[in-house]
Amino acid sequence: MTTKIKKSLHTELGHSTPDRITVRGRDLPSEILGHLNLGDMAFLELTGRIPTPQESVTFNAIVVTLVEHGVTPSALAARLTYAGAPEALQAAVAAGLCGLGTVFVGSTEGAAKMLYEAIPFGEKPSRPLADMAKDIVADHRARKLIVPGLGHPLHKPIDPRTPRLFQIAAENGLSTHYVALMQAVQEEAERVSGKSLPINATGAIGAIAAEFGFPWKIIRGFGVMARAIGLVGHILEEIDDPMAIEIWQRVEKEAGGPRQD
Amino acid sequence: MTTKIKKSLHTELGHSTPDRITVRGRDLPSEILGHLNLGDMAFLELTGRIPTPQESVTFNAIVVTLVEHGVTPSALAARLTYAGAPEALQAAVAAGLCGLGTVFVGSTEGAAKMLYEAIPFGEKPSRPLADMAKDIVADHRARKLIVPGLGHPLHKPIDPRTPRLFQIAAENGLSTHYVALMQAVQEEAERVSGKSLPINATGAIGAIAAEFGFPWKIIRGFGVMARAIGLVGHILEEIDDPMAIEIWQRVEKEAGGPRQD
Amino acid sequence: MTTKIKKSLHTELGHSTPDRITVRGRDLPSEILGHLNLGDMAFLELTGRIPTPQESVTFNAIVVTLVEHGVTPSALAARLTYAGAPEALQAAVAAGLCGLGTVFVGSTEGAAKMLYEAIPFGEKPSRPLADMAKDIVADHRARKLIVPGLGHPLHKPIDPRTPRLFQIAAENGLSTHYVALMQAVQEEAERVSGKSLPINATGAIGAIAAEFGFPWKIIRGFGVMARAIGLVGHILEEIDDPMAIEIWQRVEKEAGGPRQD
Amino acid sequence: MTTKIKKSLHTELGHSTPDRITVRGRDLPSEILGHLNLGDMAFLELTGRIPTPQESVTFNAIVVTLVEHGVTPSALAARLTYAGAPEALQAAVAAGLCGLGTVFVGSTEGAAKMLYEAIPFGEKPSRPLADMAKDIVADHRARKLIVPGLGHPLHKPIDPRTPRLFQIAAENGLSTHYVALMQAVQEEAERVSGKSLPINATGAIGAIAAEFGFPWKIIRGFGVMARAIGLVGHILEEIDDPMAIEIWQRVEKEAGGPRQD
Repeated sequence: MTTKIKKSLHTELGHSTPDRITVRGRDLPSEILGHLNLGDMAFLELTGRIPTPQESVTFNAIVVTLVEHGVTPSALAARLTYAGAPEALQAAVAAGLCGLGTVFVGSTEGAAKMLYEAIPFGEKPSRPLADMAKDIVADHRARKLIVPGLGHPLHKPIDPRTPRLFQIAAENGLSTHYVALMQAVQEEAERVSGKSLPINATGAIGAIAAEFGFPWKIIRGFGVMARAIGLVGHILEEIDDPMAIEIWQRVEKEAGGPRQD
Repeated sequence: MTTKIKKSLHTELGHSTPDRITVRGRDLPSEILGHLNLGDMAFLELTGRIPTPQESVTFNAIVVTLVEHGVTPSALAARLTYAGAPEALQAAVAAGLCGLGTVFVGSTEGAAKMLYEAIPFGEKPSRPLADMAKDIVADHRARKLIVPGLGHPLHKPIDPRTPRLFQIAAENGLSTHYVALMQAVQEEAERVSGKSLPINATGAIGAIAAEFGFPWKIIRGFGVMARAIGLVGHILEEIDDPMAIEIWQRVEKEAGGPRQD
Repeated sequence: MTTKIKKSLHTELGHSTPDRITVRGRDLPSEILGHLNLGDMAFLELTGRIPTPQESVTFNAIVVTLVEHGVTPSALAARLTYAGAPEALQAAVAAGLCGLGTVFVGSTEGAAKMLYEAIPFGEKPSRPLADMAKDIVADHRARKLIVPGLGHPLHKPIDPRTPRLFQIAAENGLSTHYVALMQAVQEEAERVSGKSLPINATGAIGAIAAEFGFPWKIIRGFGVMARAIGLVGHILEEIDDPMAIEIWQRVEKEAGGPRQD
Repeated sequence: MTTKIKKSLHTELGHSTPDRITVRGRDLPSEILGHLNLGDMAFLELTGRIPTPQESVTFNAIVVTLVEHGVTPSALAARLTYAGAPEALQAAVAAGLCGLGTVFVGSTEGAAKMLYEAIPFGEKPSRPLADMAKDIVADHRARKLIVPGLGHPLHKPIDPRTPRLFQIAAENGLSTHYVALMQAVQEEAERVSGKSLPINATGAIGAIAAEFGFPWKIIRGFGVMARAIGLVGHILEEIDDPMAIEIWQRVEKEAGGPRQD
């Protein structure tokens, strides 16, 4: 039988022969193992090239930021899943990842998208950043949308990760007009609203990711890959010092009874 | 209302206050960001301590090994999922992870479990490794089980990742009786079966993970965290050069018609 | 320790005591088992009441419609996942569900949302349906959005499910202004575009779901619950007559080689 | 290009042409919609035939049993996931399903497997059921395994679902040697252990599923498809009366602080 092929299938990521395993055009054993750390490997996987030392420090910093943030809803979902299917650790991590959507991680991609819409990657700003920021904030207010990357329910008046990430980016030559525009947007948003609106970690990461030129659609993936690591950590802790069954029993006892309020 | 608490809930992984974010007892911005690469961060998350330089190189190598292995069933599941829900990248990665079970990643944990059963962590081998290997192989044959970590459908007579991983482990002081026992098991299995049974990458990783003392139940998690990175790479490629819809249409056309064989 | 509770936790869905299991206020063994079919049980779970015979026929029809649609991307993702983790059937179904997003199932909720925006549930149409349809189509064209529930890549000039679903709804008293408005929107969209734009199954289901008054946010869930059934069917077939490994090997062989186009 | 095909791909489940949609060889609009309820459709999907009225009542009862069981870990995982990604309802259901493994649903398949090993489907018992039960219980005790389908942490001395399910099965001609053997196993296990070991719902369902002849590997899927319905119900309640964020905040407050015990 002959299958008529309209479009051929191709990948640049990796392929294997009996005696070779190639990833992104490099021999995995001799050119990658022992040479690249996990963050650099992620950079290679996404871009097809080895990061410079400056890129390596900065990219590792932004993904490291997203690994662990305590017993989040995502971590709880993974722990509760593991309690029911300990033989399928991978499914527990998968369950934890499923919730990394618009509420908790989405603003990473939103901030980058907003910045790229103002300044397409590869171009220079066409007018003063303060003017752009004014338009961006006014536009979000007109559409009753929150500005992505600003504000945090807990970390006020500043998100402690943001100045550090911006410092690392600046020290490594990855702080040009995208970081500056994000900061201009913050100033304008605070001026107009009269409220403290810190650039949160997802805003900082979105801006730095834009400095690299990563497509906005993939930036949520930084949080996904980083949190997969953190979720494995939560599962290891759950094995040694479990909380899932206790949480379930407390909730069931309270929620299954007569309404309390 | 007072909830009677039988067991209190606790985590050592991370917690936040308005001006501080602590991970594993360390201040995230000042002590972690800019200092640890992503693999070291994973090590900290799992063990509570910063790896030594030797541990860092070796641990990074074993997780880097597992990031990318071409268009695997896992990568295809992620791509097909993304085609239906591009707004939920996290769910596409989750779908890809769900298949990292006993067939494709499980032998990592199996090899470590087998080695720990022979030599409990922290103890010295109680008798010659060749004798242990003989018993292990005989026991698996008696129970009609394959020996975990041996054999590969494609990579014959050796899996090219294995000698490189063992070299890195040896150069960094992480190659003692677990690696040696894995090798003894291979020799015995080849002797008894008369077949080429290379130590595959999951066998090598299982043995090196045992050198670190990682609990066998968490070792599958190395593959899960690493592959999460690889799946983000596949999704980025799927955005730029898609194959999912084409695969679907080919399969539907063929499978929906009359049987061909 | 006393946990201060800001909001109590409560569920109306189900709770258990040693000798009773209650679902939606009914005794599961004596009032539900043997009395309700699976579709009626879904209706009870979602609404808190037993459907009338007319509602039962219609609701069962709309969920039955969504169970099986051949080797979709969702079915392929489930099969490929099962090939890697056959011990975790639940994770294979989960992987298949992850892709039921905006591309393949989302328009069910989109159609209902559009209809509710025109005619809030419980109210009568405030003006002729043809006028409403004109505005809806013009608005979507102005915003360059497709009208949800219209058009199908394969089923032209009509989607064969739609007239049958509308017939069942009409015979059972569940075809009032929402179904009529969906049909008016179709007529207007075809008139303005000059193209054949059949109401597809998700459009029909969205309109009938609106007749019931189901919140638009949950309507995607009809497809999710129905497809979970279909995916279990695909996994059973995959056990008996597998295709996942064959698909993987074909794709890997083609995609891992030099580019073909 | 010609792809050499070692094995052709085929499905019996469903396929479509522009004007027809066929499921299991039946025209979906005219032969299925309006005729089959959702449980009957599941039966058709799994077996390729329409159930008899007796099979319909019994099969619907066993899947209806598994739809809803209060705020289980699975329901909590779905709710916590929805809180983070409300735009991806399907991923929240998927997260909830991921935990339906060996701890909470697996014994359904375990009970059926145990029964089929004693009496292969299609054969008659080769010796008295009491003798078989004696061997089964002794064998599990020797291997220090619990007997699948027996015992329940809450429902003592009987699981109220079991007598009702057995009654329905008996009334419909689906209670022969598999149900009887399950009961003999219970008697023997209680005799030997001196403890109350009720046949739980998964034991009853496993036994009745064996009466149908369903392969044991697919029986977990009954719980998966049923719980998908229940999880959609939990998400609808979470939209109207949320508990996920409250649970998260309580846990985070307690678990992130100093250890309490």
